[in-house]
Order: sequence, then structure tokens, then C-alpha cells
Amino acid sequence: MTHAAARAHPNIALVKYWGKRDEAAMLPAAGSMSMTLDAFATTTSVHLDASAESDSFVLNGAEDTGGAFARTSRFLDLVRTLAGDDRRARVVSHNEAPTAAGLASSASGFAALALAASAAYGLDLDERALSRLARRGSGSATRSVIPGYAVWHAGDDDASSYAERIEAPDLRLVIVTVDAGPKAVSSREAMRLTAETSPFYPAWVSSTEESLAEMTAACRAGDVTRIGEITESHALRMHAVIASSLPPVRYLAPRSIAVFDAALALREAGVTAWATADAGPNVCLLTTPAEAETVAAAVSGHGAVRIVGPGPGAALLPEDPFAGRTRAGDALP
Amino acid sequence: MTHAAARAHPNIALVKYWGKRDEAAMLPAAGSMSMTLDAFATTTSVHLDASAESDSFVLNGAEDTGGAFARTSRFLDLVRTLAGDDRRARVVSHNEAPTAAGLASSASGFAALALAASAAYGLDLDERALSRLARRGSGSATRSVIPGYAVWHAGDDDASSYAERIEAPDLRLVIVTVDAGPKAVSSREAMRLTAETSPFYPAWVSSTEESLAEMTAACRAGDVTRIGEITESHALRMHAVIASSLPPVRYLAPRSIAVFDAALALREAGVTAWATADAGPNVCLLTTPAEAETVAAAVSGHGAVRIVGPGPGAALLPEDPFAGRTRAGDALP
Repeated sequence: MTHAAARAHPNIALVKYWGKRDEAAMLPAAGSMSMTLDAFATTTSVHLDASAESDSFVLNGAEDTGGAFARTSRFLDLVRTLAGDDRRARVVSHNEAPTAAGLASSASGFAALALAASAAYGLDLDERALSRLARRGSGSATRSVIPGYAVWHAGDDDASSYAERIEAPDLRLVIVTVDAGPKAVSSREAMRLTAETSPFYPAWVSSTEESLAEMTAACRAGDVTRIGEITESHALRMHAVIASSLPPVRYLAPRSIAVFDAALALREAGVTAWATADAGPNVCLLTTPAEAETVAAAVSGHGAVRIVGPGPGAALLPEDPFAGRTRAGDALP
Repeated sequence: MTHAAARAHPNIALVKYWGKRDEAAMLPAAGSMSMTLDAFATTTSVHLDASAESDSFVLNGAEDTGGAFARTSRFLDLVRTLAGDDRRARVVSHNEAPTAAGLASSASGFAALALAASAAYGLDLDERALSRLARRGSGSATRSVIPGYAVWHAGDDDASSYAERIEAPDLRLVIVTVDAGPKAVSSREAMRLTAETSPFYPAWVSSTEESLAEMTAACRAGDVTRIGEITESHALRMHAVIASSLPPVRYLAPRSIAVFDAALALREAGVTAWATADAGPNVCLLTTPAEAETVAAAVSGHGAVRIVGPGPGAALLPEDPFAGRTRAGDALP
């Protein structure tokens, strides 16, 4: 096979990943847990080209020669080393997530790329090995390989730092997009700043492992309230440790706080709604399938809302979705 | 003397006090630093009454027999023990702070009471001894005894936990009252919750001592920018450690965040403005006398604004301001 295509989805962490133990090996300081979504897929094809002198990358219909290309090519180097095959590749990738959703595409992007590239280069990786490979592209991609709910074990080396499936109740996330603007500080930069300057960082790392153990137990018990409590308190702790950096970094906007307040008001009214937010102003509300529409309606005044649920893991596609349309400017599927 | 009256003012901490080392002795977990304000005075008179069987307390024109009376009477017990005088007292107190300003009156209240009561019972306390006494009524009252800027040394016993003057540049605070509603969780309760449940609490305590040392150095150097940086980052760390409690406590409202954002925008425009907030939604912006009007105008859309500066310490009044008007319902000065 000299070409392969795959699809993967973003994930939302309910126990957050914030901080690296080893930046080169992409080992996280602590474990994390997430729901892989059933929306906003990234579709990626990889074509090997024995005659090409360098890789090339078309992202969302445009030839990329900047940072995204560089990260993609470095990731392919890793796959080539594993496969013992030094052919260059043409990568075509398309994100379904509208930029306005504020969802980082690196998780779905590197999960899809890991699968498409490993298949194109002839590697036959199981789910665990694939999640380890995706981890090298982007930490959160480790979890996007896995369907439904995933726990990413921090591990202490490349072999032991991988994600795996975990059973949990069927839940929904109401994504509230309160701000589509670019971040003032990138996650990568803020993560480093937190580790270097926050006095709370060591306690954040150790308490995250405790939260993960509690979350795993709550999922096993099917205890939605407990899952929600851990989700919201852990998200607030992540924003707390980030805000305690020097200089302080604040990702939550006034409208983000309003959505956290709305979650509290919903709970006081007997509705399941627990807030979480990644390193940005958008907020996701965790709820049950039966209550998702109620929650979405209650917060629709704060921004665009979208209900998502547990989705599939990274999967190969039987046909190349970009066949004959791999040049920049070609119409996308 | 069988009666005395005193006046004291609230203070705003630039290095926050959050957490007790010893609740009975009112020893704080770490030191703090504040500006005593030139506004919102509390005026308190204490009349000893050899014939009374119990203390009595008129607060803002109304006879109080609840929690405020109980705290006042317990505080008088302390003074009586020090003075070896068991006479009961009638206490009349008036706060100039409108409830809407969201300023706690316990600091000015116990600083004024400490001075009036100690004088009425014949104790002659110096500034340090008076701040120690006020501390027993309310932690932040320790600092309201002191004029201008005060450092409260945490100390390790009653004798070593007191406030003293510190030289600092002449600055202003723009108080932005974004919400006048009652707090969901009292400071006292949240402080205890933080100490008991936040994994960040030990690091908060140790880093606060570091922030205090840096603040003292910045004040000595007259470095307004550094004073501002420490003020804002320390306030965010206090809200961070509070939000990391279980269950999480969030005091900052959407409009509070908007004022923090406004401070950032002002700085980007070259204006001195650093935000701080106590355990509530109101925000104070630290600035220079020359820029105070500009800052106040910039944030007036977020709530009622009031410019305050460094004010006097607790002081005795030559006459009883409530003379002949010590009954509940009497007109106040």
C-alpha cells in the first residue's frame, strides 16, 4: 500500500492534561480522561511518493508550508523511522470543525495522521501502539485514537504512556462557543509557563492523578453526579493553576463565567449540568442525553451551542476521500 | 475615663490574607500587606456602665442582639480581661461604607472598637499592641489600625502577629462595585474550606510569604509597576486557591473578569492599572494619583466607581460623636 486515509475526532478532557513531564518524548506530567466526540472529524490521506524530495501538506484546501507543515513532516519522520522507509509523502487533511467552534484540531489531526501514515508506510499498529504514536504529534491526540471514553496513562516512558478505553455512562456535552477569537497565549506556551512559574504546579500534578483515580471509579460506578463534580472542579483547578503563573494567564472570559454560573443555576433547578473549559474561553456542559436539549436551550444566550456525544476512535477509510483532489484549491468532500 | 470613641477605616490588601494558622488566636497562615483607605470610616463609641448586666450594641442606628452583638461582646471580654475590669459596656457604631460598596466593615469596625474599648477601659496601648488586639476581633482589622500602608507579620504567637507601617509610593485605588448582592459563601467559611480541601493551599501559604517579601522590596524601591504586578498576580492566586477548593468557590463574576480585562487593556494603552479583588465580585484597580480619573472613567461602565487613597490609622475622637444619641433609632451623625 502506498496510500491510506483515516478519520478521527476531537476529544474533550473531563480530567485535564496540563503539563509535560518530558517535552521531547511527549510524556504528560499526569494522566487524563476524555470523551472522544461524534462530531468535527478530521479526514487525512497520506500518499507516498518515491520521486518527491520533500513532504507536502494541503490543509483545508490550501498548501501549507509553515508551522503545520513542519509539524506534519517531523511526525512523518517518526513514522519513516519506525517503518524503515524513507519515501516522502503528500498529506491532505480537512477539518470539519468550524474555526468558530474553538476546538483545537491537533488531537483529531494527529490521531488521523498517525493512522493514515502508519498504514501507508505499512505499519500494523494496534490501538495502544497507535495512541502512543499519535501522542508524539500532540498530547491530546493520544486520546482521540480511542472511541468513547479514554484514559491516558501518564506512564514513565514511551511504552507506558498510552490511552485506553474506559466504560462510562452515555453522556452529552453541550459546547458553548462564547468567543471565536485567537488565544492571547498558546496552550503550549502557557503549559510551559505554568510548569516553570506556578507555585501550585506540583500540587496540580499530584492532585490530578488523584482526580483521575476518582473519575475512573465514578465511571465504573456509573455515578453521573460524581463524574460531573470531578469534571467541573478539575477544570476550575486547571484554570486556577494557569492563572497562578507569572505573568498570570486567564483563559476564561466574562461570558465563560456566565456559563459556569448557568451550570450552577441549572443544577439548583435539578438539571444535570457540569461545566468544563479547555485553555480558551469556550465552555462545555456535561449532561445526560435526556437533558441535553434543555441544557442547550438554557445557555443559548451565551453563544452558539452544539450538542455532541461519545464518538468513534480513529478509523481507516476504505477509499481515498480526496482522490483526484489532492492539489491545493481542489474542492473538498 | 468611662467612655471613649474612635474612628478607623477599611483596608484593601495588595498581598492578601487567606487562611488561618490558628483560628482561636487569630494567627494568619502567612503575612499580608494593605492600604488603609481614606474613606468608608467606622465610628464607634464605648460607654462603660457599672450597673448594666450585659453589653449592648447599636449598629448603624439599630439595636443588634445577633451575631454582630455576640462578636462585639466576646471582644469586650478580651479587653476586660486585659484591663482587669468587668464592667459591661454600651457600644454604638456607625459604618460610612454603603452596603453597596461591598467593603467588609469588620476591619474598620474592630480597629475602631479595639481603640475605643481599650481607651474606655483605661488601657494605654501603642500601635503594635493595638493592632494585636484588633487582630483578635477580625484578621484584617490588624492592618486597619495602621495609617497608609501596613504589613501584617504572620508571627508565630500572639505577641509576634501584628501590623506595622511600611513606606510605599502614594497610590490610588479605583473601587468598582460590580455586584452588591450577598456572597454565596462567607469569607470565613470559604477560608476554612480552602485550608481543608485545596491541594494548592500549602503552596499558596509559602508563596504568599515570598510575594510579601517581594512586595516589601518593591515598596521600598518605589517601583509602582512591580507593586502592581505583585498585586494583580497575588489576587489571582487567591481566587485560584479558593476555586480549587471542594466544592469549588468562585467569587469573581462575569463583570469582575471584564474589569480585569479592562485593567489589561489600560496597561496596553500605557495607563497604570492593576486589578485586585477580595472574596467577592468587586474589583479595585491600583493606579497613580495622576491617572486615577482616567482609570475610573475607563471602567465606569462596569459598575459604580469610587477613587480612594491611603488614609489615617485608627484614632481617638475628642468628643463622643453619638453623645445623647446612643439609643437605637436616634439620628446618626
